[in-house]
Amino acid sequence: MSYKVAIRSFKTLTYVGSYKKLRDRPVPYYCAALLGAGIVTYNQYKQNKYRAEAKEIMQLRNYMAEPITPISQLEKTQDDMKAQMEMLIMRIQAEFCRALEKEEDEEAKFKVDRWTRKEGGGGITCVLQDGRVFEKAGVNISVVSGKLPPAAVQQMKSRGKNFENKELPFFAAGVSAVIHPRNPMVPTIHFNYRYFEVEDKNEVHWWFGGGTDLTPYYLNEEDAIHFHMTLKHACDAHDASYYEKFKKWCDDYFHIPHRGERRGVGGIFFDDVDQPNQQSAFEFVTSCAEAVIPSYLPIVQKHKDDAYGYYERQWQLLRRGRYVEFNLIYDRGTKFGLHTPEARYESILMSLPLNAKWEYMHEPKPNSPEAKLMQVLKVPRDWLLIQKSKSSTT
Amino acid sequence: MSYKVAIRSFKTLTYVGSYKKLRDRPVPYYCAALLGAGIVTYNQYKQNKYRAEAKEIMQLRNYMAEPITPISQLEKTQDDMKAQMEMLIMRIQAEFCRALEKEEDEEAKFKVDRWTRKEGGGGITCVLQDGRVFEKAGVNISVVSGKLPPAAVQQMKSRGKNFENKELPFFAAGVSAVIHPRNPMVPTIHFNYRYFEVEDKNEVHWWFGGGTDLTPYYLNEEDAIHFHMTLKHACDAHDASYYEKFKKWCDDYFHIPHRGERRGVGGIFFDDVDQPNQQSAFEFVTSCAEAVIPSYLPIVQKHKDDAYGYYERQWQLLRRGRYVEFNLIYDRGTKFGLHTPEARYESILMSLPLNAKWEYMHEPKPNSPEAKLMQVLKVPRDWLLIQKSKSSTT
Repeated sequence: MSYKVAIRSFKTLTYVGSYKKLRDRPVPYYCAALLGAGIVTYNQYKQNKYRAEAKEIMQLRNYMAEPITPISQLEKTQDDMKAQMEMLIMRIQAEFCRALEKEEDEEAKFKVDRWTRKEGGGGITCVLQDGRVFEKAGVNISVVSGKLPPAAVQQMKSRGKNFENKELPFFAAGVSAVIHPRNPMVPTIHFNYRYFEVEDKNEVHWWFGGGTDLTPYYLNEEDAIHFHMTLKHACDAHDASYYEKFKKWCDDYFHIPHRGERRGVGGIFFDDVDQPNQQSAFEFVTSCAEAVIPSYLPIVQKHKDDAYGYYERQWQLLRRGRYVEFNLIYDRGTKFGLHTPEARYESILMSLPLNAKWEYMHEPKPNSPEAKLMQVLKVPRDWLLIQKSKSSTT
Repeated sequence: MSYKVAIRSFKTLTYVGSYKKLRDRPVPYYCAALLGAGIVTYNQYKQNKYRAEAKEIMQLRNYMAEPITPISQLEKTQDDMKAQMEMLIMRIQAEFCRALEKEEDEEAKFKVDRWTRKEGGGGITCVLQDGRVFEKAGVNISVVSGKLPPAAVQQMKSRGKNFENKELPFFAAGVSAVIHPRNPMVPTIHFNYRYFEVEDKNEVHWWFGGGTDLTPYYLNEEDAIHFHMTLKHACDAHDASYYEKFKKWCDDYFHIPHRGERRGVGGIFFDDVDQPNQQSAFEFVTSCAEAVIPSYLPIVQKHKDDAYGYYERQWQLLRRGRYVEFNLIYDRGTKFGLHTPEARYESILMSLPLNAKWEYMHEPKPNSPEAKLMQVLKVPRDWLLIQKSKSSTT
């Protein structure tokens, strides 16, 4: 390999400086040229070696694309949380995309867009559109840094942080996904796990945020219980108080105030997690992110071939309209994204469904399956208490 | 008429107090009962008379429903701008709805919802959905008063008003409409004309706002010129500087920053109009509102039976997705509405299309009719200058 590079480098040199001409020049020129060729050779060798290693690691780890931060740097700084988080979200993205692809027809694959940002960092956006099972599935990671504009700083202030009202250096790495299946019997899932660093008055503040939530079109209590139970297990391994707290936070967050409805049957949601220490908080987030596949894929497999008709599809489209309302009017992530300079709006808005519908004054018929869903959206249920009482009576 | 009311009142009295029992009581009871019957009779008579008159006036004026303010009060206060504006928006709503119904199949009629608000006032929402010509057409008037919450006051502050940061008594009357036709060759139109009063430190501040703008799916330059020319005529009759100023304001307002696009080919938009005096400002707004039908209906008539296929429909749905993005993320009217306590969200969100679509990274083909529209959305055009140069070369 290095031999070939040396040959190529020598060829380049003969082309640029012309070897024949060089041969007739005095010795110092000749030495300088050889030294130059040596440096070029070594640099090319180093670059090629890194690229080959990166490719190898990528293939080994089955990543969707090359990480945003060069792999050499990630390896050098692997004790830094920034690097750990980037590796985690790369892995979660790849595992989730591959798991979804397995449910699809062979020809339906994720389109992968790796993008970079002038101000620093970039992302990898993976979208599978118009599949047989998934109407629109978006799985995005982003690793960005730079200066946070006051509008975005303000957004954070309202979340309990008390930063100076000026541009601040920041770092953010996160994975986020929204999966809109085609069959109305399969719920939509959303998850997002992120890590932030903000530098204020020479001090670095860090915290984690995230959550996973489910939006069914038709209520299946068994599925909702399975989903919540999986999340609870992920939480319980780290703190017995987390599930209850973050389940409530989720119900409060995914709320469409003007309709008096929740977006779905909830899940978990948290922000500003900086306890008990950085490594433990990271491990908690890792558990949550790893719980996505077992919480969701069994539901997809169970219902992806369920029978449905025109009426069920229309109801699904109307509920997708509500999803759009929440995301565009209330979601802080979307607002934060669209306020970030040079934001890649296609990656932020990949969460929107392929199709949505708004009917004036639509009301489901009383006692219909649609009305049954609405009841749960209006008054969130404590899913695991239901299961407890169920198992205690059997 | 009043004879019948007296008989009915007497019958009610005999039922409640029992005429037979009353006959045996002393004279004072008898007199009191007769006096009571007289008052009841007179009140019922007055109420029925007003109701009959209101009905007559409504039918005469062809309003969509009874005005929010009782007609008797509107007549008593007809010199007050609040009453004048309410009468104007009632008329504009009715004329526009009737004009649209004429383009439709016979069975497609506006559904009329008259609603009232606990805090004061109400509105009339007219929606025609799933017609042959109009996929979704909403024409709403509202006449509301009460206390403006600080969030909404703040919204006004950013518009140049410098009110106290507390709840303030306000009055708002306006008409607003969004028409989404089915045929992609017919543009969507939006208009909104409104009058505000806010009381701050015992002083009443008033102003008008409004605008009309067009959102085509396929660009027809002739239509855009006709549309702008009609609006220019309406403006020119009042102030020669208005059209240019308000055309630019419109281009700036209906802007989707994250996409770097305008929503459509513009029109006019203005806010805070309180010059040269209340009556003249009202007449200007009247002219603008009256220009809606001549600016739009000829375009509907011309294209409502144009041929189109699946591809054109898909493009229309994608553009409707952009319409939703603008309305839910940026439109101040929608934000103001959703921040107003007890707001009727179905009336605010009637502007959303029946169907919309979001495709990841959709790009029209170069030199296609879709790409031609995008050029105009990215760089707004001065439509009437084009016409001038066209007519000077012919």
